Amino acid sequence: MKKSNGFIYLKLAENIQHMISEGVYAAGDKLPSVRSLHLEHGVSISTALQVYTHLEKKGWVTSREKSGYFVRYARQMRPPLPPVTNPAPRAGRVQINEKLAVFRKTARSEKTISLIGASPDTSLMPATKLKKALQLASRELDNSFIPYGDITGHEPFRRHIARHCLNWGRAFSPNEIIVTNGAIEAASLCLRAVANAGDTIAIESPTFFGLLLAIESLGMKALEIPTDPVTGVSLGVLEDAFKQKKVQACLFVSNYSNPLGSCMPDNSKEQLAKMLQKYQVPLIEDDVYGDLHFAPERPRTIKSYDEEGLVLYCSSFSKSIAAGLRIGWVIGGRYHEKIAQLKFMSSAATGILPQLVLTKFLDQQRLDLHLKSLRQALSMQTMQVTKAIQEYFPEDTRLTRPNGGISLWVVLPPKVNTWQLHDAAVAQGITFTPGALFSSQHRYQNCIRLTNANPWNDDQDWAIRTIGQLSQQQLNG
Amino acid sequence: MKKSNGFIYLKLAENIQHMISEGVYAAGDKLPSVRSLHLEHGVSISTALQVYTHLEKKGWVTSREKSGYFVRYARQMRPPLPPVTNPAPRAGRVQINEKLAVFRKTARSEKTISLIGASPDTSLMPATKLKKALQLASRELDNSFIPYGDITGHEPFRRHIARHCLNWGRAFSPNEIIVTNGAIEAASLCLRAVANAGDTIAIESPTFFGLLLAIESLGMKALEIPTDPVTGVSLGVLEDAFKQKKVQACLFVSNYSNPLGSCMPDNSKEQLAKMLQKYQVPLIEDDVYGDLHFAPERPRTIKSYDEEGLVLYCSSFSKSIAAGLRIGWVIGGRYHEKIAQLKFMSSAATGILPQLVLTKFLDQQRLDLHLKSLRQALSMQTMQVTKAIQEYFPEDTRLTRPNGGISLWVVLPPKVNTWQLHDAAVAQGITFTPGALFSSQHRYQNCIRLTNANPWNDDQDWAIRTIGQLSQQQLNG
Repeated sequence: MKKSNGFIYLKLAENIQHMISEGVYAAGDKLPSVRSLHLEHGVSISTALQVYTHLEKKGWVTSREKSGYFVRYARQMRPPLPPVTNPAPRAGRVQINEKLAVFRKTARSEKTISLIGASPDTSLMPATKLKKALQLASRELDNSFIPYGDITGHEPFRRHIARHCLNWGRAFSPNEIIVTNGAIEAASLCLRAVANAGDTIAIESPTFFGLLLAIESLGMKALEIPTDPVTGVSLGVLEDAFKQKKVQACLFVSNYSNPLGSCMPDNSKEQLAKMLQKYQVPLIEDDVYGDLHFAPERPRTIKSYDEEGLVLYCSSFSKSIAAGLRIGWVIGGRYHEKIAQLKFMSSAATGILPQLVLTKFLDQQRLDLHLKSLRQALSMQTMQVTKAIQEYFPEDTRLTRPNGGISLWVVLPPKVNTWQLHDAAVAQGITFTPGALFSSQHRYQNCIRLTNANPWNDDQDWAIRTIGQLSQQQLNG
Repeated sequence: MKKSNGFIYLKLAENIQHMISEGVYAAGDKLPSVRSLHLEHGVSISTALQVYTHLEKKGWVTSREKSGYFVRYARQMRPPLPPVTNPAPRAGRVQINEKLAVFRKTARSEKTISLIGASPDTSLMPATKLKKALQLASRELDNSFIPYGDITGHEPFRRHIARHCLNWGRAFSPNEIIVTNGAIEAASLCLRAVANAGDTIAIESPTFFGLLLAIESLGMKALEIPTDPVTGVSLGVLEDAFKQKKVQACLFVSNYSNPLGSCMPDNSKEQLAKMLQKYQVPLIEDDVYGDLHFAPERPRTIKSYDEEGLVLYCSSFSKSIAAGLRIGWVIGGRYHEKIAQLKFMSSAATGILPQLVLTKFLDQQRLDLHLKSLRQALSMQTMQVTKAIQEYFPEDTRLTRPNGGISLWVVLPPKVNTWQLHDAAVAQGITFTPGALFSSQHRYQNCIRLTNANPWNDDQDWAIRTIGQLSQQQLNG
């Protein structure tokens, strides 16, 4: 027992040392408390204390009375943060579809190294456990998978979702939940529930192109709100838009947005929820990345502060368990009935098979364990990508510092055109997402989205080095 | 061998005799040819001849030289056909949603006998074979179910669909097919691909409320076209609408429409396809019932005559294998790319698990055998429902004579209000679909949709008798 305990504390100390040496924790940063090491890593309080005593002896950390442990040494290796974005203050039609079609048709081979990262790499997902769950489910299967199911979803699965929501501090009844074909269907139904063609939707700037496309295909307009890469949308600008009745609804990714990785602080979420009530504006909250927090605590949601059913909460297991199962959900608040009706005519009930598999998987209570290791991997990979960008990209490159999720946003010097950069990269067998796809206003031409969704290896390193070199060539040329 | 052969011909003769005595074949009707008995029932030519010799001896059928066999005797038990419908000749907004919400909220218990029939009863579906397919699929499963799949669907499954389309006489490449979450998603995406809010869609009158809802929720208008309960929409009226440029697109169920059960003759389909080309109007063809033909031959589709990619063909396995798997597909013609883009932002790729199960099921080549027995059951049940309506419903009731599909349309005397009738039936523990749900023009208040999707039993008989009695009470009251 003693031996294994020793192993645990040394391993943990090594991890923390590694994160310091790689700049995840900078000099002066506060480290996780002894108590949070205890809770998050499942070690005893005394083992957690041993970790810091060891690191203190080795000169990496220092303790301050009643305040905890702080970093003594760190290589300052992170590029500076991008500034708050500054989109044009007017709503406009979205026209991203054609651009996206060109992007998607770019010739790629099987050997292409993809830094697109729509979801965490398959190797990080619980494939074996899911297969076992499928086998169990198929053995116990009755005939309930034959007819159309309940339009709101399989009840035992909805019960699991309700329990899962407790993680961000709110209790729901399974009856408030509608299961969907992923969060993208959920968000699309929500848009249709709260707005019509011609209406204006407030979004983050930049915003995931899938959401822009949804707005475009429904004939709605987008109002891009200035967004801080750390704290999310500017509530001041948003409130002005509310006051001027410019906005029919909001569509935000409150936790680890795509592509910025911003996470709205909980007090801002509370403030925003109050604003929604004051101006009676509905908000669609896309929380697909909320479970992928690198720090021990799961951030809350805007929905958790919603007193009047104005927040339509969407999430899925696509980023945390398996995108291919296509299972998401929506808690629609006062729009629940309307969403159920739209769901009926959009695709009827969601298929029962993947819900049965996920129910079995969740029955085994393996989700927490899996999420813990997934988060650790994503956190480590973020650091590795960050380090490579610091090393290989042109001077004056700026980079986000996400504390969760799977996106990194790189702002290159203004002279770089990342659409051309993408063509050059594809010729070398590398693909990533150019910044222009994340705006309705032809912005972010010098930006790219990279991902921390892939395990680090020589290919990843080479790909980022190559993109860096190609950017430098554009600057020189 | 001789004994089993004798059993086959007697059994077959008995079935035909039963169909005659029950009015499925009326006096003077031509019976299936010897050759089609041979092909459809897998008996030898000589056994098929024995069947008719036997029936001829017993006085049921008569032969005419070079023409085949005809019915000599039949109880004329079918109610008269409803007339061609006569909707108002103007496009209008659809407002069916509220009515439907009331209908769906009607209190039902588990004991309620449902004559709604969204899909054939579970007992008629290949549950055991599907479970086996699931077990096989789960044993061979690799990790491809983890990431987002191909937006157009699982390639081996699309190959099966391409082969399946040969049944109605057209060869497609798997690349022309997009797999969807059932045909309702397919039709909904097609509507969005061909029309915008405010545009007018030509539909059959009456039309399935799910399609009406789709039109309503997209802010489009509906133009109801007069429809013959046997041959489908009036092409003359439709062409006039085309000439006046009243119609942006058509949305028809060409084979065994819901609720009328009409089936457009193949030459009308060809004529319609030519009209579409002449006026350059796209048509969404919903063919979910096409495989459920009671006669030996599968009807063709409008798509099979489409030379210019103007027909967007939608179908699914919801009515023939399992609605709960939620698997449909669309062959979009010239709208293929646009549909793929809309699919991406509506729900991304369709989940891979049900596609793997269906691929396994289709690999085993059990579909034809299953469809044959399903069709026989539905045909028999149609006759049983028909007989009960003849027996129990008020005089002057009219009834469709579908040659496929799962809907029967009952036209009661004008004084009957079927919305009230439905309330009265629910109080007795019976539910069916009132006619008012099938029109954008508040028509069909004296009509109801019943179903042949349920195996016949005392409950079914009692339910139809009760509805008949309740109608009579309305007439008397």
